[in-house]
Amino acid sequence: MPMSSDADSALEGRITISVDAMGGDNGPKAVVAGLAKSAEKNPEIGFILHGPEDQLAPLIAKRKLTDRCVIRDVQGVVAMGDKPAHVMRHGRDTSMWSTIESVRNGEAEVAVSCGNTGALMALSMVRLKKLEGVNRPAIACLWPSRNSHGFNVMLDVGADIRADQDDLLQFALMGVSYARNGLGLEQPRVGLLNVGTEEHKGRAELKVAHDMIGAAAPDGQFDFVGFVEGGDIPSDRVDVIVTDGFTGNVALKTGEGTATLIRDLLKEAFAYSPLSRIAALLSLTSMKRLQKRIDPRRVNGGVFLGLNGTVVKSHGSSDDTGVSAAIKLAFTLAKGRFTERLAARVASGQSLLQDIGTTEQDERLQQ
Amino acid sequence: MPMSSDADSALEGRITISVDAMGGDNGPKAVVAGLAKSAEKNPEIGFILHGPEDQLAPLIAKRKLTDRCVIRDVQGVVAMGDKPAHVMRHGRDTSMWSTIESVRNGEAEVAVSCGNTGALMALSMVRLKKLEGVNRPAIACLWPSRNSHGFNVMLDVGADIRADQDDLLQFALMGVSYARNGLGLEQPRVGLLNVGTEEHKGRAELKVAHDMIGAAAPDGQFDFVGFVEGGDIPSDRVDVIVTDGFTGNVALKTGEGTATLIRDLLKEAFAYSPLSRIAALLSLTSMKRLQKRIDPRRVNGGVFLGLNGTVVKSHGSSDDTGVSAAIKLAFTLAKGRFTERLAARVASGQSLLQDIGTTEQDERLQQ
Repeated sequence: MPMSSDADSALEGRITISVDAMGGDNGPKAVVAGLAKSAEKNPEIGFILHGPEDQLAPLIAKRKLTDRCVIRDVQGVVAMGDKPAHVMRHGRDTSMWSTIESVRNGEAEVAVSCGNTGALMALSMVRLKKLEGVNRPAIACLWPSRNSHGFNVMLDVGADIRADQDDLLQFALMGVSYARNGLGLEQPRVGLLNVGTEEHKGRAELKVAHDMIGAAAPDGQFDFVGFVEGGDIPSDRVDVIVTDGFTGNVALKTGEGTATLIRDLLKEAFAYSPLSRIAALLSLTSMKRLQKRIDPRRVNGGVFLGLNGTVVKSHGSSDDTGVSAAIKLAFTLAKGRFTERLAARVASGQSLLQDIGTTEQDERLQQ
Repeated sequence: MPMSSDADSALEGRITISVDAMGGDNGPKAVVAGLAKSAEKNPEIGFILHGPEDQLAPLIAKRKLTDRCVIRDVQGVVAMGDKPAHVMRHGRDTSMWSTIESVRNGEAEVAVSCGNTGALMALSMVRLKKLEGVNRPAIACLWPSRNSHGFNVMLDVGADIRADQDDLLQFALMGVSYARNGLGLEQPRVGLLNVGTEEHKGRAELKVAHDMIGAAAPDGQFDFVGFVEGGDIPSDRVDVIVTDGFTGNVALKTGEGTATLIRDLLKEAFAYSPLSRIAALLSLTSMKRLQKRIDPRRVNGGVFLGLNGTVVKSHGSSDDTGVSAAIKLAFTLAKGRFTERLAARVASGQSLLQDIGTTEQDERLQQ
């Protein structure tokens, strides 16, 4: 699908993100509002937006994004309840498929979708394919933390529902790469999630993975802090938390649910009496500062790692702030990848992600 | 170990809780401070306190608890790092062993310990034994929620690291009994923790357990709401959340870690500027109200379910507020159990817990 000359002029010199306009709970309006928010802050971004043109064109025009955004007209939509297997077989005419296709054919650096996670993962796997040497791709999320850079990385948070010791080692290596490229950490600290920090606790595969990750640390240029517990996820003991996709997904949603509960209770507490309402008014700035720090929408992008291309999964319930956060993450990764791809291409004629895959495999084989 | 006449007079007419003074991170001082807090609020409570008498006697005297508390002199202490198997073989002279012994021999209704969870669970299993018909005992915790009664129950949060479909069904039935007796809910709503609410997601054993729990609901006098996600744990969709001990433990600690992070960030936000410090002063009452609601110390008691006796595990890091919360829970359960045991004894000559065990087994066999 070659770009039109219109598209060429709209996206020339920009870092292009491929965006799925459909499939989120709040519809294409919220997605386009997110694009507008990102575009306003960042003159380097361009978009390819996938979905029904008759719906998208007026939204894009209204947000004055016509010169930054190319619409790819696709009529089909993947619904939240659609089974991944069904989408893989029959989803060719959906905005999600088309969104991934733009990464596959090199039109865009990174894809962003708010749609059905299972379907997005399945389509990404089938169309982008696993990196050579990767057994189980993973979804990595950013978690607000006490670290000076403000976030920790956790993976897998839901690409798969299980992981054996080999997968956990790969998650550690992929998480380290992501922390290095996404957060700029030279020597990330990796922890393995378990129910106790004593080495005799926990599942058998975790004990094996513990030793494997520890052995890989010196060559992998990361520090292994050993087992960590749920309470350490937002701590400054660790930068990368490794776990299976079932546990990681439950932890992620539990953390979000807890934060939302506290935010609601805080509102109630401030609405309780006239004095507390005055206090609320005075503390507005403090509260906004806090909310910005812990707002799940601002750490909204889960990233699929281990594929020949990068896909950012935004929450189904994302509003403009959520979509904009996912776009920002996509941009950071696209920009880094682009730069490094250039460097890697000069060095070896291979794409950056293949380089990382090969490097990590080498590190692992060197053990 | 018969009680002395001193003990008789100290505990007569009171609901007696057996308390392990040792093994917590903050030592016997924090435990005794917790007892004092509980004793002050509740004239019905009496204690048997286990640990080295030379350390405990001055603390008890200082807190003026001499007439409410009997000391059981034991020199040994189970350390946080001790392996459960070691404690089971060599732990006879420890305060933890002695604490459980008081429940075993009927001196006390309920035991409370802040010590090593694995050792406490192992000792409880071996000394109190599993209820007839229970395969895997579980630890249930209380979770602050949007429900009108303020809490949800989640189990297992760490008695074991795995659970198959039969165990998950038993957790549901035990959780229902606990919600009924501990929270006074006539018809609790039960949810099964998974990574998605669609029925085709998640592990195989969860799909089987989903159907088993659903089938048990009508006779078990509870409602089954189906799969729930991490974000639903503090919600008002559900009263009892069922999961395996690995996932439950990670979720519990993640929720606590998130709440603590937010509390710290809130403090920082309020300390940021002169204006925000004035706001903080004005909002002190609101904040205290909120803090009371979400303070992990106030939902501090994990309860071991499925044994011939009740054991409340308090956090290792419990301070006086934490210990006092655990004691309050122990008291509620002891009081309820006592009442119901009397009723059950009249009806069938069996203890209440055996009744519940038998009833639940019958319900299950009726399916």
